[in-house]
Amino acid sequence: MYAIGVDVGGTSVKAGLVSEDGIVVEQLSRPTPSTSAAKVAETIATAAQALQKRAAELGEDVSAVGIGAAGFIDAGRSTVLFAPNLAWRDEPLRDAVGAIVGLPVVVENDANAMAWGEFRYGAGIGVEDLVCVTIGTGIGGGMVQNGRLTRGAYGIAAEFGHLRVIPDGRRCGCGNRGCWEQYCSARALVREARDLALVTPHAAGRMLELADDEIDNITGEIVTTAGQEGDPGALDCFAQVGGWLGIGLAQVAALLDPARFIIGGGVVAAGELLLGPAREAYEQALTGHGHRPLAEVVPAQLGNAAGLVGAADLTRRG
Amino acid sequence: MYAIGVDVGGTSVKAGLVSEDGIVVEQLSRPTPSTSAAKVAETIATAAQALQKRAAELGEDVSAVGIGAAGFIDAGRSTVLFAPNLAWRDEPLRDAVGAIVGLPVVVENDANAMAWGEFRYGAGIGVEDLVCVTIGTGIGGGMVQNGRLTRGAYGIAAEFGHLRVIPDGRRCGCGNRGCWEQYCSARALVREARDLALVTPHAAGRMLELADDEIDNITGEIVTTAGQEGDPGALDCFAQVGGWLGIGLAQVAALLDPARFIIGGGVVAAGELLLGPAREAYEQALTGHGHRPLAEVVPAQLGNAAGLVGAADLTRRG
Amino acid sequence: MYAIGVDVGGTSVKAGLVSEDGIVVEQLSRPTPSTSAAKVAETIATAAQALQKRAAELGEDVSAVGIGAAGFIDAGRSTVLFAPNLAWRDEPLRDAVGAIVGLPVVVENDANAMAWGEFRYGAGIGVEDLVCVTIGTGIGGGMVQNGRLTRGAYGIAAEFGHLRVIPDGRRCGCGNRGCWEQYCSARALVREARDLALVTPHAAGRMLELADDEIDNITGEIVTTAGQEGDPGALDCFAQVGGWLGIGLAQVAALLDPARFIIGGGVVAAGELLLGPAREAYEQALTGHGHRPLAEVVPAQLGNAAGLVGAADLTRRG
Amino acid sequence: MYAIGVDVGGTSVKAGLVSEDGIVVEQLSRPTPSTSAAKVAETIATAAQALQKRAAELGEDVSAVGIGAAGFIDAGRSTVLFAPNLAWRDEPLRDAVGAIVGLPVVVENDANAMAWGEFRYGAGIGVEDLVCVTIGTGIGGGMVQNGRLTRGAYGIAAEFGHLRVIPDGRRCGCGNRGCWEQYCSARALVREARDLALVTPHAAGRMLELADDEIDNITGEIVTTAGQEGDPGALDCFAQVGGWLGIGLAQVAALLDPARFIIGGGVVAAGELLLGPAREAYEQALTGHGHRPLAEVVPAQLGNAAGLVGAADLTRRG
Repeated sequence: MYAIGVDVGGTSVKAGLVSEDGIVVEQLSRPTPSTSAAKVAETIATAAQALQKRAAELGEDVSAVGIGAAGFIDAGRSTVLFAPNLAWRDEPLRDAVGAIVGLPVVVENDANAMAWGEFRYGAGIGVEDLVCVTIGTGIGGGMVQNGRLTRGAYGIAAEFGHLRVIPDGRRCGCGNRGCWEQYCSARALVREARDLALVTPHAAGRMLELADDEIDNITGEIVTTAGQEGDPGALDCFAQVGGWLGIGLAQVAALLDPARFIIGGGVVAAGELLLGPAREAYEQALTGHGHRPLAEVVPAQLGNAAGLVGAADLTRRG
Repeated sequence: MYAIGVDVGGTSVKAGLVSEDGIVVEQLSRPTPSTSAAKVAETIATAAQALQKRAAELGEDVSAVGIGAAGFIDAGRSTVLFAPNLAWRDEPLRDAVGAIVGLPVVVENDANAMAWGEFRYGAGIGVEDLVCVTIGTGIGGGMVQNGRLTRGAYGIAAEFGHLRVIPDGRRCGCGNRGCWEQYCSARALVREARDLALVTPHAAGRMLELADDEIDNITGEIVTTAGQEGDPGALDCFAQVGGWLGIGLAQVAALLDPARFIIGGGVVAAGELLLGPAREAYEQALTGHGHRPLAEVVPAQLGNAAGLVGAADLTRRG
Repeated sequence: MYAIGVDVGGTSVKAGLVSEDGIVVEQLSRPTPSTSAAKVAETIATAAQALQKRAAELGEDVSAVGIGAAGFIDAGRSTVLFAPNLAWRDEPLRDAVGAIVGLPVVVENDANAMAWGEFRYGAGIGVEDLVCVTIGTGIGGGMVQNGRLTRGAYGIAAEFGHLRVIPDGRRCGCGNRGCWEQYCSARALVREARDLALVTPHAAGRMLELADDEIDNITGEIVTTAGQEGDPGALDCFAQVGGWLGIGLAQVAALLDPARFIIGGGVVAAGELLLGPAREAYEQALTGHGHRPLAEVVPAQLGNAAGLVGAADLTRRG
Repeated sequence: MYAIGVDVGGTSVKAGLVSEDGIVVEQLSRPTPSTSAAKVAETIATAAQALQKRAAELGEDVSAVGIGAAGFIDAGRSTVLFAPNLAWRDEPLRDAVGAIVGLPVVVENDANAMAWGEFRYGAGIGVEDLVCVTIGTGIGGGMVQNGRLTRGAYGIAAEFGHLRVIPDGRRCGCGNRGCWEQYCSARALVREARDLALVTPHAAGRMLELADDEIDNITGEIVTTAGQEGDPGALDCFAQVGGWLGIGLAQVAALLDPARFIIGGGVVAAGELLLGPAREAYEQALTGHGHRPLAEVVPAQLGNAAGLVGAADLTRRG
C-alpha cells in the first residue's frame, strides 16, 4: 500500500509515490500556479491522480494523500490558515484536493512534514525525541517528542528562527530584533563574508577573487568553496555562523532535551565546516554541560525528499 | 480509589491521600532526614503507610504511590539519577519505597509533577498544551503537549531557567552567564530592589524604610508590600522582573506554542504587580505578535499541593 | 598675509590660498599621484608655487604652507608616520615640500585640520571647546579644548569611530567588534536600508522603487531622497543611525564636556533627518541629563574646504 | 614660597602646607561641618591660617590657597555650582575663604586636583598627556593634555564612570544603565564576589570562610586577601573587574591617546591582581592595537595627599 506525499513550495509542487518503507517509488514536479489557491489544489490533485495511475500500473493501491505546505495549518489538518509565500488565507486545501482525488487527504506544515520524514526514514531513525532545524534563508524546523510530532496549541510550534539570541540585535522580518535566524542562516553566512570583505578586504581575499572582486557577488557557494580550500577568511565566517548555530541549539536543548538534532537545508552542504563549530559551541553553551547526556548534532539525510516522504507517512500515523 | 502523592523537598516530605477528583483528602508532613537516601525512602514509606491506614478507615483502597522529587529521574521513572539538594546519586527510590509499602510506585521530577497537577486539577483545566513556569530562587517548570507530559529524551526537558537571555550577562550557578533565572526570580527581584537602593537611595525610600534602612534587609516581601502600596520604586522593580518574565515566555512560546502559561512560585503572591508587566512584555516580544493567538498568562491555583496532587495522578496516567 | 592650505586625499590634492579671515581666495585641485610619496610632495609643491604666484599677482605675501593628510603625523608635525590610503610610511613630507617651495611647512592630520577650520571660521565660532565628528565611510574627528587642538600623546587622539558601543557587535575593520562607526556612518545607513529591504521588503518599498527593485542598488542618496519625501522606511533608517550618533556623542560628552558638537561628512546632507534623532538620543543617553548644560549639535559649515582652511590657519597658531 | 592645598571631603577637611617641590611640609585635618557652607569656608580658613602661622615659624611665605572640592566648579574657579555630598548650590567658596585668609584662593574639582597632583609630583612625572582614573564606589578622574588640565566647556569633563559599556546593562545612580562604574569599582568587585558566593558557593569557599559564611559580610578587603593567597574564586573576581577596567581604558584611549593611565583609589591596594588583567584587556580592546604605542597603566603614587598637593600647585599654574 502506497501513500502520496506532496510538498507545496513557492515555485514548485513536488509529489511522490511513497512506499511503506519510505521509498519514493515515483516522483514528479509541477510549477506552482501563482493565480489562485484553487489552481494549486487542482495542480496537486492532477499530480496525485497521475501517481495514482502509476501505482495501479505497479499493482499497488494508494491509501491517502499527505500535503506539506508552508504556513499555519489548522488543528484539524484540513485548512491552510495563512501561507505568506502563497498569499493564502483560510484555504480548505484538504477538501479541495479530496473532492477531486477521492482519497483521504491530510495537510501538514512543511517543516513538520520534513521533520517527520527524517524521524521515520532518515537521520532520526532510532530515537524518539528529536529536533529538526532547517537552515535556509531563515531557520525552520519541527520536533518529535515521545515519537509524536509536536504542533503546539495553535499549530505554530517550532518557530526556532525567532528565538531571540541578542537583545536589540539585527532587524528581523518578524518585526523583532536579534532573532536567531539573523545570525544563523544562509543569508547570515553571506552577510558575514560580505562584511568581512567590506571592513578587512585582505582577510576576504580568496572569496573576493572567486567573486570577481565584487563584494555583492559573494554567495554561500563561494564561502563554502573557499572554506573547503581551507581559506581562513571563509573558515572564520563558518565559525561565526556555526557558533551561533550551536548557541541556539543549546537554548532549544534547555527546553526540549532531545536525543538528536538533525540539521537540514542548503548550508548543510558545507558539512563539518558548519557542524564542527556548531557542536563545539553547543557543548559549551549547554546548561549543565558535563553533567548530562549531549544530544547528537547530525546532518539531515533525505534532502529535498524529506517533506514529501514525511507528508505521505503522516497520513498513516503521527 | 485513592492514590498517594508525595512531594520530597530539601526540608520536608509532604504526603497526601488524593481522590480521583484531585482532592487532597488527608495530608501530612515530615522533616526530610538528612542522613541518607534509605532514611528518606523509609520516611516516605512510613508516611504512605499512615495514609493507607487512613484510607482504609475511610473505606477506600489506595492504588499506588506517586513521588515527586527534585532531580533527574530515569526514563523508567524508578531511580533518582541526581538530586543536588539531597546529595543523591542513582537512588533506586521506586523499589526502596515499593518494598516497604507493597504498592506500585512511580517517581517523577517534582516540577513535572507540579505541572501535571495544575494541568489536571488547577489552572490548566481546559487546555491540552501548557507550560508551567515556577519562579523561586531560580526558574523551574514543566510542560504538557497534546495532553501528555514532555520529559525529553533524558528526562531533563523544561530547564527554562537556563535559557540565555543576555550574552555575557549575569553569572549563573550553572556555569554559564545570562540565564533567564538571573533576571527573573525571587532573587532577581530582591537584587533589583537592593541595586535601586544602592545607586539611587531616594528612589527606594519606602523599601528602605520597611527594611530599617539596611539595604541587605530588603526582601521580596518588602518589595511586594511596597508595590501593593503603589510605591514607584517597587513598581519599577516589578516592571523589570515582570518584563524579563514576559520576554522569556515569548522565547518559550516561539518553540512550544502553548495555549496557556501557568506561573507558579512564591513571587506569584504579588499577582498583577508581576503578571501585568509580564503580559505586556510577552505580547511585544512574541514573534508574529498580532498575527497569532496569544497564550494566556495565568497564576497557578494549587499552591504547594500541586506537586503531590500531580504525583498521585501520574500513577494513573501521564 | 595669505597662507596656503593643502588637503591631501586618496584621489585628489586640493590646495587653496587662504586669507587671514579664512577666505579661500583661490583654489585648485590635482589628481593624487599614486606612484610615490616624492611625487605627491612634488604635486603639493607645484600647486603651492602656482598659488604663491597668484598671491604675488594679487599683491600679497604667503607666510607658510599647511598640509592636512590622512594618517598618523609625528609630534613635530613634519612626518607622516603611516597613511593607509596613500601607502606611506615615515614620509618626511614637511622637508620634501619645504625644500621646493622655500616656505615654512606644517603637516597635520586631516581630521584635525578640518576640526580647526570649523573652529576658526565655521560652525565652531564662539566656543573654545568643541568636538568635530565627521561621518563618512567611518567616523573621524578632531577636538579643540581651551582653544587648542588636542592631538594626544602620539598624535592619534579622536579615534571616535572605534569607541565600542556594543560588546561583540558588528565586525570592524580595526579588528575589534561593535565599534561606533559600524552603527553610525554612511555605510551603516545603507546597511540599515538594505537590511530593511531584505527582511521586510514592503517597509522599504519606496527605496526599492528608487533602486530599480535591486537591494544592492540602494545608496545613501536614495535613503536621503526617500527620507525627504517622508517615507517611513527611510525615516526609520535615519532614526536608527541618528540614534546611534546621539548615543556615541553622549559617550564623548561624558569624557570631554564640549560646548558644541559639529557634525560633518556626506550624510549631513540629510540635515535634520539625521540630526533630529541624534539630538534626542544624545539628550537621553547623556549622563546627568537634566542637571547639566547640553552641548549643541550642529552641522559643519565649511564642507570640503574645512581641511585646507584649517591647515592654512594652523601654520599661524594651534 | 609655600602654597596651601585643601581637600574638602564629605567627612573631613584636609589641609597641607606644600612646597614648590610638592612636599607636604605640614598637614592637618578637621571634621567637615555639616551645618552650612559658611561653616565649611570658616573651617577651611581657620586651617589655612594655622598653616600660614606654621609657615611663618619656618620662615616661609604662603602665596595662595588651592581648594579641591567634589562637585561642579564654575569656569572662574571661584564658585562650587553643585556639590551633592555637601548639599551645596552656588557657593562662592573662593571669596568666602579669601575674605578671611587674605590670600588669593583658587577652587578646583577634587578629581582634577588629584590628577594634577599626580601629574606634577607623582606617577605622572615625565609625560604631558595623561589620564587619571580613580576607582572607589564609582569611577572619577581627571586628565592632562599638552601639560594642561582639561576641564571641558562646563567644568564637568572626565566623567569616566558614566561611559556606557553595555547597552541596557546594570542600573546606575546617574539614571542610565550599563555605566562603566557599575562593572569596575570597589562596589563592583564586592558584587562579583557576592554573586559568585550566591550562585556557586563552592567557588567562593575561601571568601565565605573569611566572611564567617555570611555572603553580605564579603568586603573588598576579603576579596583582596583571598586573591593575594591565590584563591581562584577571588582571582576570578579580579579578572572580571580588571577586565572591565582595561576595556574602559581602551575606550578612553581611543578618544584621548594619553601616554599614561594612572589608576588611583582604594582598590589599587590590590595592585597587580587588578592591574594585570586590566593591562591585558586594555591591549586587546584597544583599537589599532599592535600598530600604535600603548599607554602605560600604572598605580597612583601620592595616595590621599594627591588632592591637596594638586590643589596647592594649581594656584601656581594649570
